Amino acid sequence: MANAPIVGRLPAGPRNAITDVAGVTVGHCTLADGACQTGVTVVRPHPGNVYVDKVPAAATVFNGFGKSIGLVQVDELGVIETPIALGNTFAVGALAQAQIRAAIADNPEIGRGWPTVNPLVFECNDGYLNDIQAMAVQGAHYDAALAAAGPDVPQGAVGAGRGMSSFGAKGGIGTASRVAGGYTVGALVLSNFGTPDSLILAGRALGAALDARLKQPPEPEKGSIILIVATDAPLDARQLRRLSMRAGTGLARTGSVYGHGSGDIALAFSTAYTVPHLASAPMPAVPMVHESALDPLFRAAADSVEQAIVHALWHAETVHGRDGHTRRALRELLPDLLQGFTA
Amino acid sequence: MANAPIVGRLPAGPRNAITDVAGVTVGHCTLADGACQTGVTVVRPHPGNVYVDKVPAAATVFNGFGKSIGLVQVDELGVIETPIALGNTFAVGALAQAQIRAAIADNPEIGRGWPTVNPLVFECNDGYLNDIQAMAVQGAHYDAALAAAGPDVPQGAVGAGRGMSSFGAKGGIGTASRVAGGYTVGALVLSNFGTPDSLILAGRALGAALDARLKQPPEPEKGSIILIVATDAPLDARQLRRLSMRAGTGLARTGSVYGHGSGDIALAFSTAYTVPHLASAPMPAVPMVHESALDPLFRAAADSVEQAIVHALWHAETVHGRDGHTRRALRELLPDLLQGFTA
Amino acid sequence: MANAPIVGRLPAGPRNAITDVAGVTVGHCTLADGACQTGVTVVRPHPGNVYVDKVPAAATVFNGFGKSIGLVQVDELGVIETPIALGNTFAVGALAQAQIRAAIADNPEIGRGWPTVNPLVFECNDGYLNDIQAMAVQGAHYDAALAAAGPDVPQGAVGAGRGMSSFGAKGGIGTASRVAGGYTVGALVLSNFGTPDSLILAGRALGAALDARLKQPPEPEKGSIILIVATDAPLDARQLRRLSMRAGTGLARTGSVYGHGSGDIALAFSTAYTVPHLASAPMPAVPMVHESALDPLFRAAADSVEQAIVHALWHAETVHGRDGHTRRALRELLPDLLQGFTA
Amino acid sequence: MANAPIVGRLPAGPRNAITDVAGVTVGHCTLADGACQTGVTVVRPHPGNVYVDKVPAAATVFNGFGKSIGLVQVDELGVIETPIALGNTFAVGALAQAQIRAAIADNPEIGRGWPTVNPLVFECNDGYLNDIQAMAVQGAHYDAALAAAGPDVPQGAVGAGRGMSSFGAKGGIGTASRVAGGYTVGALVLSNFGTPDSLILAGRALGAALDARLKQPPEPEKGSIILIVATDAPLDARQLRRLSMRAGTGLARTGSVYGHGSGDIALAFSTAYTVPHLASAPMPAVPMVHESALDPLFRAAADSVEQAIVHALWHAETVHGRDGHTRRALRELLPDLLQGFTA
Repeated sequence: MANAPIVGRLPAGPRNAITDVAGVTVGHCTLADGACQTGVTVVRPHPGNVYVDKVPAAATVFNGFGKSIGLVQVDELGVIETPIALGNTFAVGALAQAQIRAAIADNPEIGRGWPTVNPLVFECNDGYLNDIQAMAVQGAHYDAALAAAGPDVPQGAVGAGRGMSSFGAKGGIGTASRVAGGYTVGALVLSNFGTPDSLILAGRALGAALDARLKQPPEPEKGSIILIVATDAPLDARQLRRLSMRAGTGLARTGSVYGHGSGDIALAFSTAYTVPHLASAPMPAVPMVHESALDPLFRAAADSVEQAIVHALWHAETVHGRDGHTRRALRELLPDLLQGFTA
Repeated sequence: MANAPIVGRLPAGPRNAITDVAGVTVGHCTLADGACQTGVTVVRPHPGNVYVDKVPAAATVFNGFGKSIGLVQVDELGVIETPIALGNTFAVGALAQAQIRAAIADNPEIGRGWPTVNPLVFECNDGYLNDIQAMAVQGAHYDAALAAAGPDVPQGAVGAGRGMSSFGAKGGIGTASRVAGGYTVGALVLSNFGTPDSLILAGRALGAALDARLKQPPEPEKGSIILIVATDAPLDARQLRRLSMRAGTGLARTGSVYGHGSGDIALAFSTAYTVPHLASAPMPAVPMVHESALDPLFRAAADSVEQAIVHALWHAETVHGRDGHTRRALRELLPDLLQGFTA
Repeated sequence: MANAPIVGRLPAGPRNAITDVAGVTVGHCTLADGACQTGVTVVRPHPGNVYVDKVPAAATVFNGFGKSIGLVQVDELGVIETPIALGNTFAVGALAQAQIRAAIADNPEIGRGWPTVNPLVFECNDGYLNDIQAMAVQGAHYDAALAAAGPDVPQGAVGAGRGMSSFGAKGGIGTASRVAGGYTVGALVLSNFGTPDSLILAGRALGAALDARLKQPPEPEKGSIILIVATDAPLDARQLRRLSMRAGTGLARTGSVYGHGSGDIALAFSTAYTVPHLASAPMPAVPMVHESALDPLFRAAADSVEQAIVHALWHAETVHGRDGHTRRALRELLPDLLQGFTA
Repeated sequence: MANAPIVGRLPAGPRNAITDVAGVTVGHCTLADGACQTGVTVVRPHPGNVYVDKVPAAATVFNGFGKSIGLVQVDELGVIETPIALGNTFAVGALAQAQIRAAIADNPEIGRGWPTVNPLVFECNDGYLNDIQAMAVQGAHYDAALAAAGPDVPQGAVGAGRGMSSFGAKGGIGTASRVAGGYTVGALVLSNFGTPDSLILAGRALGAALDARLKQPPEPEKGSIILIVATDAPLDARQLRRLSMRAGTGLARTGSVYGHGSGDIALAFSTAYTVPHLASAPMPAVPMVHESALDPLFRAAADSVEQAIVHALWHAETVHGRDGHTRRALRELLPDLLQGFTA
């Protein structure tokens, strides 16, 4: 396959994926059968027990028309304590329950001697292609995605991205990374946003052309995008909140104005250290990055996110879903216009 | 039953309950069988279709060690679009799914031509009395609580309050109301917070006495409290956020310092008008309360919340739960000290 | 003068300025004498007494490395009660005092029978060109800018924009407007942000070329940008906060990643109604815009902001300031590259 | 002088003052002449150059009807870089300018090679006693308060507290400390809030009695209170935000419901480490307090704040101000009722 258009001037990591941040793995479980076009994606921040060794994290909500679970506690405590689950809007309950069960399986004291566990689930609405009312996602799909987690990240119409749409074309999962300031920043997006006429792909305004070829009646933004940013830089929760805010600039450069109906949420986490669950364990004594050295990381986050969106569109294949609905691959829709990008 | 101690000088409404705010109803479903001591409580803001006629609302998180669902969208859009569900920490997934199903049943276009629906679930951890790992709460329990909703509000060890603890004694559901500034403000709490030595009951510092009688080893705060405030005053979402902040003052007057392990969250809503789902419906043209007239409502919210906590403790009966655990009724523990309050 | 590059496809208002929102006026006071290159700009939301008839407003802080005054109260009460002042970082104290004095002059009861008044001042650091330590701005300069307020808005190196830099070139004041969804949205920016290599001008990536011609050593982002958005659409404070968030997407499309050292703050206000100071006056009973009709306004805000930044760069003339420092006009630096844009 | 009523059961530090947190000093400059009854108070977090060695800090706004300066940057960067100034509402501009000048005097590169400096000023409205429109406070008063800073803290009608009122009586400056969890927590308040009928003094409801003796017509809350909390515990900015939230519980226990017209703001800082201005300096590598060990600090913050309010009322002497206005000392108003407290 030809290479996707390249965003910015920073170098990518070896995989050009969020898994270039050491320890991070990603797994998918894809459900694709007739009207059921959906799935689950899991981002695992490190290979260990995330409840016992929590991961510093913070989020920014650009537009809160969304049903994510877990952000209240992330905002208060500045850590995540489960792998991150992505799915469709009506799957969040099942995914949260699966995360709770998985956490208890590893830590039987949860909800007994220990406190409870904070599920962390993000979602977009794949109801155009997928029969979302059927609520097909079950806990076992979370377990399968988690078990499949590894360093290679299939992109496009896979996992939670199976039924997603972007810019009137097929959306889905994309990932990318950038190396800057001595650290690696990676992004993974679940891309389900965008009206056709607004598309800017790696700096090229393709919206008018896409709109003309789709010949669809104009629709309001009903999508959403989830932006997961990882880094190996030692940042505390406040700094990670700053990093998550920059994910929005990468998103904006693709043409988004954070549409009313779009749940646009970024979560950033660091793998540089963990925070122990047990008070008896030593707290980390890691010097954080000096504030004035954050700019390269900010740009890396923006570029990784924009590149991950480009990748989601680039890799997404045409999918036929419920009630005769189809979302076509962007590369089928704009083969001529995308040719210039090809390496 | 003797009367509970009275908080403040403002008059209560006829029921001294959140249901004094016209249109608001409350229902419980209680599960009480051996190690299963839990349940569901539903607050219905009006008798109609809450998705079609949304209710202005806003929240304040005093301490975010909690797993509520739905606040991201409430914060963005300033409305709630389902009844409010309360349950235990590991029930939130099941309750969210039940809310989605109920919303679809009433509005089949949800997730198809219409956007999705935002479940709104609050929780406390009843794991001391209840075998929370069993995840006993199912969607049918939400439906039952919703079906039971009415103007009379059983209090104490009922519904979501069945397994809750407060101040080392039995906690649970409490409600109250106050009339001030020409409007009614009501509160309903799910009380599961408080260390014994910190108890202040309607102005009386009873903590030392309670601590002495309980003879329990000191425990960290692992509770939580959910504070639901309703009013018939016409307030917009920004003003309702201000009102929800005052719930914290009522909570603080009972001895809480918003303990680390306690998810302390307030939600305030108004019944004075609704916001239509459909853009074709007329938007409300209601003059809001002038900002300088809010003080009586602020005090009514604070007093209603404090009174509701007093009621939760006053009405809660002794409950025996899992593994020989028991939480005793406060009135059994402090009969002499509570006598003075009795009317 | 040739026409500036055009952002997006929405039509501009007759002046392509924030003053296309009826009632809004803008005034400058420019100080340009040797090492003193600074000034004051005032945005007056309506011609009346803004303290008595307050204006609904809300803000978003994209990056809080800034010294604005007044946002705490705007966030709480959802209104502004003075004209908006823009100046340099060390002028905020003097400007706040001038706003207080002007408010008292119009409303002698302020701070006596009435509450105090909330000054609203925004700033950027013009210290590269201007001797900012001299603290040259006085209250009289605020008064002069206010007195000069009118519908025509000089742009570029004027008023508060006199000493500002952007992308290593001269920055300053820019304004623009868009008409969408039946309403007008206007923006005014104080542009002092951007590293040369990041410039994207109306969709064209000019950063590499600009960087090559400036031949400056790379510098960290030390700028800031203030984004004022006005609309005649009836929006409440919560909706205006949503609108202000979209200003960030327009900013991001010019290449900004909200650099660490840049105070990037947006304020949005509506002129569709006012909120009376006196409780005895009737509260407005205006139906707000339905949430699902906000998308055109969001795009208008994004495009107005991006266009205003283009205008700031387009109109800014070369300025020589303190210690031999110079910022050159972008049109002098890139005459060939900007030619294509000219109408 | 007899001892003031004692709040809670935690032990106080040796001075029962914020200066029990090692390194913290406090200075006042009092202006008391006829209609001019006002002043300045400065809290210095450590004896060194606060710009070069910044102090971790965070704030909570309980009610944002206030005109503080500097919180936008504190929220973003999690540090303070000047001493903290307290004054009257119309003095904030002059105090900010004085802080800028003092910072430049110590660090001439500010606003030239270095970034600017973030003034940090808090205020209450002393306009009942003080002719606030006269704007009597000048930069020299800030300098004098800073020069006077030391470990002994005069309380009551001194410094910024000179003209303040509380509960219809005389308010002002109060301070206190508590030792808990192996650390010291101290508080200093500028108390200018409270309606007479709401007073709860160290657990005793004295409001009805106070109201009866004052024989004043009821007034709306037009006050404010500033709550400064210091600790030697190593907390990061996120944890300090949590600590600052608990200041509100201490405030609520005195009868406050965060009245509409009251700017109620808490700032918490830690002296356990500093954050260097220069990127070339090593970043701190200090293990933070484990989250589950915060509860004693939370209670210490709540009790310190409540005690500091008690001290402000206890020490405040009767003051006569502008236009024949007088605020009487609480101990003159309630000598009999306060007798029981005396040690």
